[in-house]
Amino acid sequence: MIKKYTSGSPINTGAMIKEFQGEDISRFPLVSRFDGGKFRFAQSLGKNAIVYGLGEAPRGINKRGWVYESFCSDDPFHTETKSSLYAAHNFIIISGNESLGIFIDFPARIRWDIGYTSSDTCSVTVDGEDFDIYLIYGDTPLSVVKEFRAAIGQSYIPPFWAFGYQQSRWSYPDARAVDGVIEGYDNAQIPLDCVYLDIDYMESYKDFTVDENKFPNFADYVAEKRAQGIHLIPIIDAGVKKEDGYEVYDEGRKKGYFCKNADGTDFEGGVWPGIVGFPDFLRSEVRDWFGSKYRLLTNMGIDGFWNDMNEPAIFYSAKGLDAAIDKASSLKGENLDLGQFFDLKDAFAGISNSPDDYSSIYHLIDGKLVCHDRVHNIYGASMTKAAGEFFEREFGKEKILMFSRASYIGAHRTSGIWFGDNHSWWSHILLNLKMLPSANMCGFLYCGADLGGFNGNASADLVLRFLALGVFTPLMRNHSALGTRPQECYSFENTGDFRDIVQVRYRLIPYLYRLFRKASEENDMIFRPLSFDYPTDPIARECETQLMLGDEAMIAPVYEQNVGGRYVYLPEPMTFYALSGEKVRSEKLDKGVHYVPVALNEVPLFVKEGKQIPVCKPAMRTSLLNTEEIEFL
Amino acid sequence: MIKKYTSGSPINTGAMIKEFQGEDISRFPLVSRFDGGKFRFAQSLGKNAIVYGLGEAPRGINKRGWVYESFCSDDPFHTETKSSLYAAHNFIIISGNESLGIFIDFPARIRWDIGYTSSDTCSVTVDGEDFDIYLIYGDTPLSVVKEFRAAIGQSYIPPFWAFGYQQSRWSYPDARAVDGVIEGYDNAQIPLDCVYLDIDYMESYKDFTVDENKFPNFADYVAEKRAQGIHLIPIIDAGVKKEDGYEVYDEGRKKGYFCKNADGTDFEGGVWPGIVGFPDFLRSEVRDWFGSKYRLLTNMGIDGFWNDMNEPAIFYSAKGLDAAIDKASSLKGENLDLGQFFDLKDAFAGISNSPDDYSSIYHLIDGKLVCHDRVHNIYGASMTKAAGEFFEREFGKEKILMFSRASYIGAHRTSGIWFGDNHSWWSHILLNLKMLPSANMCGFLYCGADLGGFNGNASADLVLRFLALGVFTPLMRNHSALGTRPQECYSFENTGDFRDIVQVRYRLIPYLYRLFRKASEENDMIFRPLSFDYPTDPIARECETQLMLGDEAMIAPVYEQNVGGRYVYLPEPMTFYALSGEKVRSEKLDKGVHYVPVALNEVPLFVKEGKQIPVCKPAMRTSLLNTEEIEFL
Repeated sequence: MIKKYTSGSPINTGAMIKEFQGEDISRFPLVSRFDGGKFRFAQSLGKNAIVYGLGEAPRGINKRGWVYESFCSDDPFHTETKSSLYAAHNFIIISGNESLGIFIDFPARIRWDIGYTSSDTCSVTVDGEDFDIYLIYGDTPLSVVKEFRAAIGQSYIPPFWAFGYQQSRWSYPDARAVDGVIEGYDNAQIPLDCVYLDIDYMESYKDFTVDENKFPNFADYVAEKRAQGIHLIPIIDAGVKKEDGYEVYDEGRKKGYFCKNADGTDFEGGVWPGIVGFPDFLRSEVRDWFGSKYRLLTNMGIDGFWNDMNEPAIFYSAKGLDAAIDKASSLKGENLDLGQFFDLKDAFAGISNSPDDYSSIYHLIDGKLVCHDRVHNIYGASMTKAAGEFFEREFGKEKILMFSRASYIGAHRTSGIWFGDNHSWWSHILLNLKMLPSANMCGFLYCGADLGGFNGNASADLVLRFLALGVFTPLMRNHSALGTRPQECYSFENTGDFRDIVQVRYRLIPYLYRLFRKASEENDMIFRPLSFDYPTDPIARECETQLMLGDEAMIAPVYEQNVGGRYVYLPEPMTFYALSGEKVRSEKLDKGVHYVPVALNEVPLFVKEGKQIPVCKPAMRTSLLNTEEIEFL
Repeated sequence: MIKKYTSGSPINTGAMIKEFQGEDISRFPLVSRFDGGKFRFAQSLGKNAIVYGLGEAPRGINKRGWVYESFCSDDPFHTETKSSLYAAHNFIIISGNESLGIFIDFPARIRWDIGYTSSDTCSVTVDGEDFDIYLIYGDTPLSVVKEFRAAIGQSYIPPFWAFGYQQSRWSYPDARAVDGVIEGYDNAQIPLDCVYLDIDYMESYKDFTVDENKFPNFADYVAEKRAQGIHLIPIIDAGVKKEDGYEVYDEGRKKGYFCKNADGTDFEGGVWPGIVGFPDFLRSEVRDWFGSKYRLLTNMGIDGFWNDMNEPAIFYSAKGLDAAIDKASSLKGENLDLGQFFDLKDAFAGISNSPDDYSSIYHLIDGKLVCHDRVHNIYGASMTKAAGEFFEREFGKEKILMFSRASYIGAHRTSGIWFGDNHSWWSHILLNLKMLPSANMCGFLYCGADLGGFNGNASADLVLRFLALGVFTPLMRNHSALGTRPQECYSFENTGDFRDIVQVRYRLIPYLYRLFRKASEENDMIFRPLSFDYPTDPIARECETQLMLGDEAMIAPVYEQNVGGRYVYLPEPMTFYALSGEKVRSEKLDKGVHYVPVALNEVPLFVKEGKQIPVCKPAMRTSLLNTEEIEFL
C-alpha cells in the first residue's frame, strides 16, 4: 500500500508514473514538524531494524549509523565520512517487524540522520516546504521495493551488446590509440565489446563535435570498428562551450536555453571547455533541443553514450575565481597570520562546485526564475531524460546504450548509471558491491562502478579481483584516469588471468541478460542483500560482503589483497563454483561458515541446491556468442 | 647473521647500537646498480613469499603489491593509494623458504616497489650514494626481527600509568574544559589516566609556554590533577615561534640553532604559531638546548609529552606563499583557460609541505650546510631524541611518557609513536591493527592510533569497536579534531558500553604491562602476524584481520558497522572470551573458521589451550589497580 502526502506546490520531478491521491501533509502519520522553512520527521528504529536504500550513496547496505545527504556531488573521494555521491535517490526502507518504505519526491537537499545522532532514531530533514512524501507499507522489504518500483516505472533495458566487456580511459586521444586498445585485447584473446571516448575526442571539449585531427572521417571509423564488433561510446558533458560560431552554443544562447543569473543574463561557469552555458534541461523545449543534438553522433553510427559532469560540476565561476584572486592580491606583501593563510588557501580549495555558484544559477520553470538550489538534484537526470526521450522517439527501446553520472529516481526509466569517479582502492570493491542492491531498490538496474578504480594506480591483482565482481554487474567497464597506470587488461603481466575472468562474463551473459530483463519487467531486483532472503538468520542479516543474485545464486568476491580466498557464509547448502575461462571447479558446501580458496583467475559463484545457471561458450564479442548452445552449472 | 654494506660516507642516523664491520657496497650480494646518483637493487619474490615491514606505513601486513616511499609525510588522508605516513622505517623482511631482512640506514628518500610493477620482484631505489645496508639472514621472520632488534637496541618503556586510558582532543581550551573531561569520565564511571593538552594550551602556540588566562597557576593545577590521579600531557611542536622577546626563539636565533637557508640566514616557515624557526635537531648542542627546555614543563609537574609537526610540517614559506599570491595577482582580470585555472588552484593546494620548501632548508652537519632533502627522515626522530636524552639524564628511565608523530628507527629507544592524524573510518580500525606488528618489527612497541579516528565525525559504535582494539594497544588514546563531533566516551548514549570496554583494558593492564616489558627486554614483538606462528597454515598465513598477542592469545576486533560479530580463523583450538567490564563469556572453539558474536560492549579475546591470561579488578585509575589480586582467564 502506498500513501501520498503533499506539502505546498511540489515541482514535478517525473519520478512517479503512477498517480496517487495525495493527502495533506498535516495528516502525515510520522512524528513531524515544519521548522524554519524545513520539514522534519522521525521514525524510531528497533534494535535490530535495518535501514535500506538511498541508491548510489556511501557506506553500507544497512545505512544505520551515519548521516547522508541527498545532494548530487562531484566529489571523487568516496571515503566513509562522505554523505553524498553523484546521485540523489530519496528512497529508504525501514525494515523491522514490518517494512516501511519512504520516498521523498523533492529535488533539493534532504538530510538523512539514520541512527547517527541517536542510534534508535531515523531523523529526516527536507530542506523546503514543497514536496510529496510517499509511504509504502509492506510485509517484507522486497514487497516494498516491488510496489515502489511499479509506481516509478519499468527500468531501462540497454542493447544486448551492452552486457559485453567495456574498456575506457581518460582518454584514448585518437583513433590510433583506440585501435591499439582493440588490438591489445584481440592479441591477448580477451573479449571486448566497447571502447569509450572520454573528453579528448571532442574539438575543444565541445559537445557533439569530433576532432577531425584525432578521428579523421569519424563516421567511417565508427563503421570500421562496428565491423570489428566494437562499439565506440563517446562522453557528453552537461556544459556547452561558450564560443561564437559553435552552432550548439549560438543556438542555445539565441533561444535563451541556458541557465540564467538572477538578472536574466546567461550564467557562465568554467568546466572542461573553459566557460560554458548550462542548458536548462528542466524545460521540455530545451530537452527536445539538446536531445536532438545527439543525432549529430548517431548519424555517424554511434549507438551508446555516457553523460557526465551533470550534477552539474562547476570548476569555477568568473565571480568565484575573481573573489579568490582579489583576496590573494589584497594580501600581497602582507605578513599573513595563520587565519588569513587558511582563509586564502580555502578560498582556492573551495572554488569548485561552490554553494555560492549553485545559488547564483536560475532555471525557468513555468515562466518564473527558480533558484538552482531548489532543483539541484534533478539537473543531471533531466539531461539524461533529454537524451533518453530522443533515443526512444528516434530508435525505439533497447537500441541505445546510455548511462549517466548524476541521477534522480525516474532517470532509471531511460538510462543506467555508473557510480562515478571511484579510486583504485580495495575497499571500493565492497563499496561497489554494496551499492548494487541499493541502486536496484531505486530502479537502477543497469549500473556498475569503474572496475579497477578510476583515480590512482591499480595493481594487477586489484584489477583482477575488481573484475571478478564486475563479471556480475550489468555494466562491466574498466575505466581509469589521466596520469594513472595503464589499466587495460593487456597492460599487466599474466594476461591469461584477465582472459579467464572476462571469459566467465561472456559465458554468463545469456543468464545475466535474462535475469536483467526479468528484473526490469517484473520490477524486481537483480542483487539482493542476504537479509532479504534470510531475514531470521542472524549472520545472513548482517552480511554485507555477499549478495544474492537472482533466485539461483549468491556472489562473494574477494576484496582483500594478498589472499588466496575468503570467508563466506552459506545461509543454506550451495555448490561453490570457481569459474575460470571455460574451467569449472566446484564443491558442495553445507550451510555455515567457510573459507573458500579463490585464485586470481577465478570467479567465485555459489548456486543453491536444485538451481542451475546456464552458461555458453565464451567468444571475443557478444555478437559472436552462441546463446543457443548452453550447458548448465 | 647480519652483514653490513657501506656506500660512500653515510650520515650517522643513530639507528644502530651494535657496530658491524662494513663491506664495500661493490660486494653487495643482491642484483644492484648505481644509476644517476641512486642505488637500485632487486630481489625476486617467490609466489608465496610474504614481505613484512616498513613499520608505520599504509596498507597491509604483507606489503606486496604496492609502492611505498620512505618519506616522513604530514598527510591526514591515510587512504590505500598513499605511499607514506609520518614515519620512515626502512626495514623489510622477505619471507619465503628463508627469511631475509633488509635495513637501509639512510635518511633521505627510498622507494620500495614491492611486487607492484612486477608481482615477482621487490625493487628498491635509494635516492643517494651515501648509505649503509644491513642484510639479516634467518630461518624465520621472527629470528630476523630479534636479531635486527638486538642491533638497534632495547625499546622505550613508558611509565606504568601510560597503560591507562587516555583522552585527547584538539583542543581542550582551558582548565575548565579539562576538568569537564575528568568529571565526565568520573561521573560515567569510566576509567581514565591522562588528559591531553593540544596546541591551544600554549601562549600563541609558543613551545614551553602555558597560557595563563586558560590555565592560571599551571603548576598548582597540574598538582591538583595529579592528586586526582590524572596526568596532563602537553603537545610540543617542532617549530619555535619567531617573536622578539620570546626566550626560546631569541636564544635559538642568537646561538644560530635554527635551520638555515642556503645563504646562511634562518629558514622561516609558517606553522601553527605563524612564522617559526626550526631547531636544527641534528646537532647535539641543539638537542641539548631544546631538550633542556622541557624542564620548563617538568618543573611544573608535567611527566608526559607528545611531539608533533616534526616531519617537519610546513604550512607555507614566505617564498612559496609569495609565489602563489604573485601568480594569482598576475591573473587578475585575465580570461583564464583551464590550464591556467588548474595551475593557479594547484599553486595554493600545493603550498603546504612543498618539496621546494624542503629543498630550501639547510642543516649544519660537521660545520657544513647539508640540504634538508638529504636528512629529511631523521628530523622528527632527532627532535624526540633531544627530549628523550634530556629525560633519561634528568629523571632516569621509565619516568616520562613520550611519543612522537614523525620517527625513524632508533627513536624507538627513547620514545613511542602514534600513527598520526587518521580518520573516523571503519577501515582505519584494520589499518591500526596492521601497523602494530609492523611497528613492533622496527622496535616501536609503545604505539597506537587515535582511537575513534582523529578527522571526521565518529558514530558511537565506531568508537566502541575502535576502543575494543585499543584495549590491547600499549597507547590507548581517544583523540579527535577541532570541529568534529565530541568523541569522549561520556559524550555518547549508552555510556555503560564504553565503561565495559575501558574496564577490560584496566583488568588486562597487569598482563599487558608484563608482556610489554618482556618484549622490550627480549627484543620481541607484542603483536605478531598469524603467519609468524603458523607459517604452513594457508589461512593463517594470509590473515590480516587478527593478530597473535604474546605467546598466549590472539586478538580479532570487529571492524564493520552494523554487525553483531565477525569471522575468525583459529589456527589451533582456543577459548573465545567476550570480555565486558567484569563479565566474562567464554566458549571453547575448535581449530577452523568460525563466526563469533561480539556485542558492542564486548572485547573479543582468544586464548590458546593450556595458556592463561591474568586479570585484576578494574579501577578508575592505574594507580588504584590492585595488581596483586589476580584471577585467570
